[in-house]
Amino acid sequence: YQSKLPNLGTTIFTVMSALAAKHNAINLSQGFPDFESDPKLIDLVAKAMQSGYNQYAPMAGILELREAIANKFDLLYQSTYHPETEITITAGATQAISCIISAFVRRNDEVIIFRPAYDCYEPFIELNGGKTIGIQLQSPHYTVNWQTVKQHINPRTKMIIVNTPQNPSGSVFSKNDMLQLQELTKDTDIIVLSDEVYEHIIFDGEQHQSACLFPDLKSRSFVVASFGKTFHNTGWKVGYCCAPRELMAEFRKVHQFNVFCVNHPVQKGLAAYLKEPSHYLELSQFYQDKRDYFLERIASSRFKFEPSKGTYFQVLDYSEITQENDVEFAKRLTIESGLASIPLSVFNTNNLDNHVLRFCFAKSNSTLQQAADILNTL
Amino acid sequence: YQSKLPNLGTTIFTVMSALAAKHNAINLSQGFPDFESDPKLIDLVAKAMQSGYNQYAPMAGILELREAIANKFDLLYQSTYHPETEITITAGATQAISCIISAFVRRNDEVIIFRPAYDCYEPFIELNGGKTIGIQLQSPHYTVNWQTVKQHINPRTKMIIVNTPQNPSGSVFSKNDMLQLQELTKDTDIIVLSDEVYEHIIFDGEQHQSACLFPDLKSRSFVVASFGKTFHNTGWKVGYCCAPRELMAEFRKVHQFNVFCVNHPVQKGLAAYLKEPSHYLELSQFYQDKRDYFLERIASSRFKFEPSKGTYFQVLDYSEITQENDVEFAKRLTIESGLASIPLSVFNTNNLDNHVLRFCFAKSNSTLQQAADILNTL
Ligand SMILES: CSCCC(=O)C(=O)O
Ligand SMILES: CSCCC(=O)C(=O)O
Repeated sequence: YQSKLPNLGTTIFTVMSALAAKHNAINLSQGFPDFESDPKLIDLVAKAMQSGYNQYAPMAGILELREAIANKFDLLYQSTYHPETEITITAGATQAISCIISAFVRRNDEVIIFRPAYDCYEPFIELNGGKTIGIQLQSPHYTVNWQTVKQHINPRTKMIIVNTPQNPSGSVFSKNDMLQLQELTKDTDIIVLSDEVYEHIIFDGEQHQSACLFPDLKSRSFVVASFGKTFHNTGWKVGYCCAPRELMAEFRKVHQFNVFCVNHPVQKGLAAYLKEPSHYLELSQFYQDKRDYFLERIASSRFKFEPSKGTYFQVLDYSEITQENDVEFAKRLTIESGLASIPLSVFNTNNLDNHVLRFCFAKSNSTLQQAADILNTL
Repeated sequence: YQSKLPNLGTTIFTVMSALAAKHNAINLSQGFPDFESDPKLIDLVAKAMQSGYNQYAPMAGILELREAIANKFDLLYQSTYHPETEITITAGATQAISCIISAFVRRNDEVIIFRPAYDCYEPFIELNGGKTIGIQLQSPHYTVNWQTVKQHINPRTKMIIVNTPQNPSGSVFSKNDMLQLQELTKDTDIIVLSDEVYEHIIFDGEQHQSACLFPDLKSRSFVVASFGKTFHNTGWKVGYCCAPRELMAEFRKVHQFNVFCVNHPVQKGLAAYLKEPSHYLELSQFYQDKRDYFLERIASSRFKFEPSKGTYFQVLDYSEITQENDVEFAKRLTIESGLASIPLSVFNTNNLDNHVLRFCFAKSNSTLQQAADILNTL
């Protein structure tokens, strides 16, 4: 069979997690917490199952959860999304992203993404016949040169995908970045896909710059979010997206025939849990403490770094240690030293290798201590 | 925005369920049971959450569940699927179907489906630029004329989608049907998508004719199945598909970037539950009793019918009652008589209307009695 995605292998997250398991290594590669979801939330989902919420949810999600999400947007961003027509619950943020791309990108359309980029964008652009235009974030802080972006915008530009806080770099967009994005796409038909799955994990007092904060930008944007990252249950696979009504109508055409709807009891549990803002407002501090704990412990290692500004990832530059390429070094670190990470080159155009690895610090302090001990020996 | 699916509205299942809710009608439209999943199974999922199975499952599903599925194929069909490479857990059967189509169908490819057809096939064929070739099942028993199929096969034919037991008609493919399908696709590159979500709901002693029973056919087939239909929890959204390794590898390329993986605690619970064959082997008798209960009660109504041979749907011909078109009649029956059903014309080419409605009998006997009481007044 002639492959529609001939160059696509298994995602690096599966590769590195499998290698970590095989070599019994500490797994700071794939991003997921090693601590548990709140037992209260687990209880709410169990109760929902026991109370009979086990048949199809409505296609766009249960209204109670969409209303709780609308309230969150109102509270955090003073931004209104109509629960009926502008919010859809998805089988994780990835399913939202793949369906947004499928709903709009056609043959020969161009989609701008910023590299290093999370690896789920490009396959669906390709699958829909689109062309990925990868723009490299600038050293040393993974910032956008908006002049470069402007040069890449043309009548074939169908979509721009942004991601703040950014995975894998841990950088965040400033208000000025969002204003530039708004300005560049003003009076165009370009759709902005704003991947904000780490919205509640942003450090040092910075404010998350959601696309919904900028009314003109919002009018052509999808905001994508994740419960797994916020409530420590990446394995429940529930997220959502928000967009103006006309955009959302096109999204739902694809969504309804991709999954139809999403796990009902989980939605029911999340709806109740989300109503209490402390359940997400304390997350930034929680992860900032973890970041600081980890970074303090490797301060005198030979790794160079800028503290992550958001997400639960920290990138470390190993160029003082070895000139090996990052994929090889990441594998050797896993196999020989017992510590798994993610090489950044897999997210770059032509696998550009800046000798940087990504480590997930959504781990218990003792795990972070063990990881630091290993890094300090290198 | 120019729509990629300009002719697509909201699925009939959402439309009719919403109408039923609005008019407080008995809802025999959208297919889902009104009785509960086994508390043992609910307990297993709750325990999995409490025991910490809340982070990402492996991309293809947890091995324990894939092994339990392989054992089921072995037991029921003496057919071997390798859990590692030939079975993938999906976010419901719909997600499997949409990804199978996306993984193989390209612009100008033709896909043969049999009408009346479940409504999730065509949108993804269209989304991928393919062309749907709808072949009408023959009256009065919704059978396939394989001569007609043969005439429609040509070098552009990429895929044939079959569905047995068939939704919405309640017909089933015989062994001869499968042999014809095997013969027609022999020595071609045509992929067969065999939607077998009602495999465990087949009546009157008939055997389910899975594509995996025919080795040559199996070598080019995806078999798609559903837990929601089998264990009475359509709202958990977990299903799976099986295929030879090379086909599955292409499927997983799409799957991994569509949803990455599927709800982990539900997989864990299902894995334990599936190990006990009585949990699915008794389903046919259970639903046959419901079918018979329902049909006995409308035996002297003015509806004409052949007893359903599988699925939990029964089609009824209302042509002795009114000459109204089926969409209008289905709506009027919901609004005026308080009973919701699905008009079959929405599943036919050009909405061909044979004055037939589909009723879901996965309901408590008292609900079926109430529904029959209404039908008997017409
Ligand atoms: C879906 S596996 C990848 C998890 C993740 O978001 C990451 O590690 O970046
Ligand atoms: C996904 S809603 C439709 C449910 C179903 O399978 C049916 O009613 O045919």
